[in-house]
Amino acid sequence: MHDWFMIITLTTDFGYKDYFVGSMKGVILGINPHAQVIDISHEVEPYNVTAAAYLIKASYLYFPKGTIHVVVVDPGVGSTRRSILVEKNGSYFVGPDNGVFSYIYQEAQKIRIVHLTSQEYFLNPTTQRVPGPTFQGRDIFAPVAAWLSKGIDPLKLGEQIQDPVKLPLAEPRWVNNGTLEGRIIYIDRFGNLITNITRTYFSAVSPPEADQGPITSGKVILKGKILALKGFYAEGKPGEPCVLMNSCGHLEVFINLGNAQQQFEASVGDSIMVRVKRSNA
Amino acid sequence: MHDWFMIITLTTDFGYKDYFVGSMKGVILGINPHAQVIDISHEVEPYNVTAAAYLIKASYLYFPKGTIHVVVVDPGVGSTRRSILVEKNGSYFVGPDNGVFSYIYQEAQKIRIVHLTSQEYFLNPTTQRVPGPTFQGRDIFAPVAAWLSKGIDPLKLGEQIQDPVKLPLAEPRWVNNGTLEGRIIYIDRFGNLITNITRTYFSAVSPPEADQGPITSGKVILKGKILALKGFYAEGKPGEPCVLMNSCGHLEVFINLGNAQQQFEASVGDSIMVRVKRSNA
Amino acid sequence: MHDWFMIITLTTDFGYKDYFVGSMKGVILGINPHAQVIDISHEVEPYNVTAAAYLIKASYLYFPKGTIHVVVVDPGVGSTRRSILVEKNGSYFVGPDNGVFSYIYQEAQKIRIVHLTSQEYFLNPTTQRVPGPTFQGRDIFAPVAAWLSKGIDPLKLGEQIQDPVKLPLAEPRWVNNGTLEGRIIYIDRFGNLITNITRTYFSAVSPPEADQGPITSGKVILKGKILALKGFYAEGKPGEPCVLMNSCGHLEVFINLGNAQQQFEASVGDSIMVRVKRSNA
Repeated sequence: MHDWFMIITLTTDFGYKDYFVGSMKGVILGINPHAQVIDISHEVEPYNVTAAAYLIKASYLYFPKGTIHVVVVDPGVGSTRRSILVEKNGSYFVGPDNGVFSYIYQEAQKIRIVHLTSQEYFLNPTTQRVPGPTFQGRDIFAPVAAWLSKGIDPLKLGEQIQDPVKLPLAEPRWVNNGTLEGRIIYIDRFGNLITNITRTYFSAVSPPEADQGPITSGKVILKGKILALKGFYAEGKPGEPCVLMNSCGHLEVFINLGNAQQQFEASVGDSIMVRVKRSNA
Repeated sequence: MHDWFMIITLTTDFGYKDYFVGSMKGVILGINPHAQVIDISHEVEPYNVTAAAYLIKASYLYFPKGTIHVVVVDPGVGSTRRSILVEKNGSYFVGPDNGVFSYIYQEAQKIRIVHLTSQEYFLNPTTQRVPGPTFQGRDIFAPVAAWLSKGIDPLKLGEQIQDPVKLPLAEPRWVNNGTLEGRIIYIDRFGNLITNITRTYFSAVSPPEADQGPITSGKVILKGKILALKGFYAEGKPGEPCVLMNSCGHLEVFINLGNAQQQFEASVGDSIMVRVKRSNA
Repeated sequence: MHDWFMIITLTTDFGYKDYFVGSMKGVILGINPHAQVIDISHEVEPYNVTAAAYLIKASYLYFPKGTIHVVVVDPGVGSTRRSILVEKNGSYFVGPDNGVFSYIYQEAQKIRIVHLTSQEYFLNPTTQRVPGPTFQGRDIFAPVAAWLSKGIDPLKLGEQIQDPVKLPLAEPRWVNNGTLEGRIIYIDRFGNLITNITRTYFSAVSPPEADQGPITSGKVILKGKILALKGFYAEGKPGEPCVLMNSCGHLEVFINLGNAQQQFEASVGDSIMVRVKRSNA
């Protein structure tokens, strides 16, 4: 069905100093030595499920069909939260049912979700390898991903479910017909502030009251400051607070060669306003 | 003997910002382009041989037989300390003879140790690639691992030795018949405190004085505070200092959604006490 | 021409917390699932083109011929700066034309440089994968590297150019016949200070005034302190400021088991002096 050469990506908050990620890779290669294991990130802020949800949303479309994405940001590990597999348009996602795949559920495509219960596909314990309740990344998600990469039927891994946990994703809201309020959902390494205002809002979406045409221009305001609208980073003058539509289709605040997070003392959840003009207004 | 597809893992204190790890991988792939090189960690605290010893102990059993583990935390590089290969039950370890493999020697299994002296398996120098005394990870350990992955006989790499350097590993000790004193040996990214008290002490080991049966319950005390015994992280109340048997079989202090290292101002070497009850007492 | 199994290395300032590197790898594997993608570093200081130039210079010679090195430290992304491919003695380099390959141009070897203009080898856009002006690592450099790894003729990727941008690389200069002034060009994870004084200066180069023979000994002085000349790190007494010829042929200041950057409060660009004696003086 797929290439014999299967890709498994890993996204976790395990960091790079410990043995966690390494032992997940060992378990995968023990089951399928031909798997190609790719790190997306292991520096997700500890326990930050929302950040992990954005990261996997922003990257999975760039991997070929058949890729299996393991995401383990899992403060509830060992508790009663379920372990799941999500299948969407040829991409596979494996992780805890804690909302980390919320963005995957958002788009209106056929999705299949399986509650992972078949223990024969979990870590094969030995005298010295004792699975425990604290490391399901190694003991459940890694081996399940490895078996998937060998072509196992997802329905052999458990029962289908219809009620996955979803994060209350911060959608932008219309304060009034002319003002859209968004939120910062992610801050990257460069201090750029990624908002929940997507490209859609600038080309197709109308406020609920009336169809007044797509937004063609507008003022973007963060903490009382008007941001200059640019096409790419180097267009901003050094030190000037700017905004652009980023490479994942989200409105993003940046300062060329600077750090917007520091300059604005910004945090995830902070409000950002767009005052819009419309093409037919 | 092994799959043509060989796995080589790397564990170092080289960090991620420099070219050190990259050039080790280049050397390996230049000798065996089919090697699968897997990072365990490069964020071992600089020069901390004990931490590296714990990391490789905690992860190697999760890799398939035939895996070659290169460990380079090596404050004595270039001095007279030996370079060695350790073979144990189908796993291979390559690195400096400075005690970094102490946990590998602990268990009573057949072990073979080779002092790496055959320079024909070291980096092949050219005008521009000059091996030096400061980077044996690239110049000795990487090429030796690559040759091993191609099936070279370990005894071609040097002479067998019987006297490897061992760390004075902090074993827990019985203060009296009812009190076991352990030590913190490792602190992970989440601030969890890993101790040298292993599962064995809770199921099979007796104090030296008399066989009074395995420990069935007990009070665990860190810096005067009694820790709640839990089965997994999410069982702890946020902020509550707890302890569990971790996924590698070590007693581990944690705070659910918190940071035990910060709250206890804990360091490696700190003492932890277990006051025990026994099943036949 | 090359092995079917092609190596692509990545060197960026994208860090490890975001999705940037992961999506570059996804794009590469979507085009060539057999590519072996190797990280050199993603912790280059943001926007520091000089540091990236040193890193790729220090590592590329250790990879086998045919390796493709993608380097993306690119403050001018989206502006008019060109995207280029550099071919030198069987090694390939892909990245922005901002001087990041300056050290590659330095040595007197046959070099071919191609301005990347053939958009059919850039990211193949779909409804959901929209290339943007802010992420050419994913949209241009990754796919071009992947096509190269499949054997595409470099001249199909664009037109040859002869005028690449070069950094004003800080070469050491002779203050007078007996004194060479160098500069710190890179500081590594251990706080070691790498200078622009290469091995060449200690064996073959003469001051411009007259051939007075190679330098055979000398005093190295940093911030008024004379440094002890050593052969390897462990030769230095703990705390003693020392200097050695490092594993890439550069003079390097270090403190055994310490941190020279902190002790000297040193920065990139700081001056270092060598007072020399000559063999025929």
